[in-house]
Amino acid sequence: MILFVDMDEVIADTYGAHIAIYNAEFSQQLNTQICLGSEVWQMVPEEHQESVRQHATRKGFFRDLKPIQDSQEVLKDLSEKHEVYIASAAMQFPNSLREKSNWLDEYFPFIPWKKRILCGDKHILSSDVLIDDRVYNLEHFSGRSILFTSPHNVNNNGYERANSWLEIADKLL
Amino acid sequence: MILFVDMDEVIADTYGAHIAIYNAEFSQQLNTQICLGSEVWQMVPEEHQESVRQHATRKGFFRDLKPIQDSQEVLKDLSEKHEVYIASAAMQFPNSLREKSNWLDEYFPFIPWKKRILCGDKHILSSDVLIDDRVYNLEHFSGRSILFTSPHNVNNNGYERANSWLEIADKLL
Repeated sequence: MILFVDMDEVIADTYGAHIAIYNAEFSQQLNTQICLGSEVWQMVPEEHQESVRQHATRKGFFRDLKPIQDSQEVLKDLSEKHEVYIASAAMQFPNSLREKSNWLDEYFPFIPWKKRILCGDKHILSSDVLIDDRVYNLEHFSGRSILFTSPHNVNNNGYERANSWLEIADKLL
Repeated sequence: MILFVDMDEVIADTYGAHIAIYNAEFSQQLNTQICLGSEVWQMVPEEHQESVRQHATRKGFFRDLKPIQDSQEVLKDLSEKHEVYIASAAMQFPNSLREKSNWLDEYFPFIPWKKRILCGDKHILSSDVLIDDRVYNLEHFSGRSILFTSPHNVNNNGYERANSWLEIADKLL
């Protein structure tokens, strides 16, 4: 079985990083619970929105992300049983490309460079399973689409959902 | 129609760059004609081979490549008629990722970030046409496979071949 796994908000905690940077720079107390159903930039005052939207263009933003809980252990087990590819729509942020490669080397060394895909639009990818947090990536996918829960997508319906990597393990191991 | 187009030795003159760097650093007179049927590193004395093999890890190597003759004009026309994606097996060289993105911005600005793919192994890609200089990329491709002539592949048979971008124009425009 061939599996494609997204990076941001599936194995890398981009959402948490947005909140942490915003809170630190503007002395705020934003948290995931308050943000449910929205993007982080939508939950800050209008005068701060552009700052949050620009986080992803900062040097080091993608390199410093924390892995999502249990993603390393479960993906290691999955990669021994299935063909696991990382597929990230990263081309919008050229600064992220090297950082994502280095980040994977550190946290997911068992997924070698041959099984990493940095692309623009995921619609050209086909495989058996796609695990992603964005409906617009899943909706054109012809295989089994699994929506990985992220604070921004809690209100999206119509897709098989996984709330954690332990649930992914139950489904696919 | 969806087209995937390789970068190195199809739209970017990697082969010529290897020869130019080698000649400059070792005061040699290597040229494409001498090298036909081989990789550049195979055509230099054994004590220089490792140096040539390391060119691709140098800062600036991929950013400084020249576009292959007529590739810009023909690909511009093709991109107006078909869905053209650039697909480069770049993950082996993390230093190349940002450079390839910047290089495309300069020479192929009409192919936007949404249509760029940097991957490890191309076997997971499927579309209608793949233009590539490497048989190992073409042999698992299910669509129309076009071998773009590069000095190293002149002896490969069994694939539809294009010797230039003008021939690609004849075939696909």
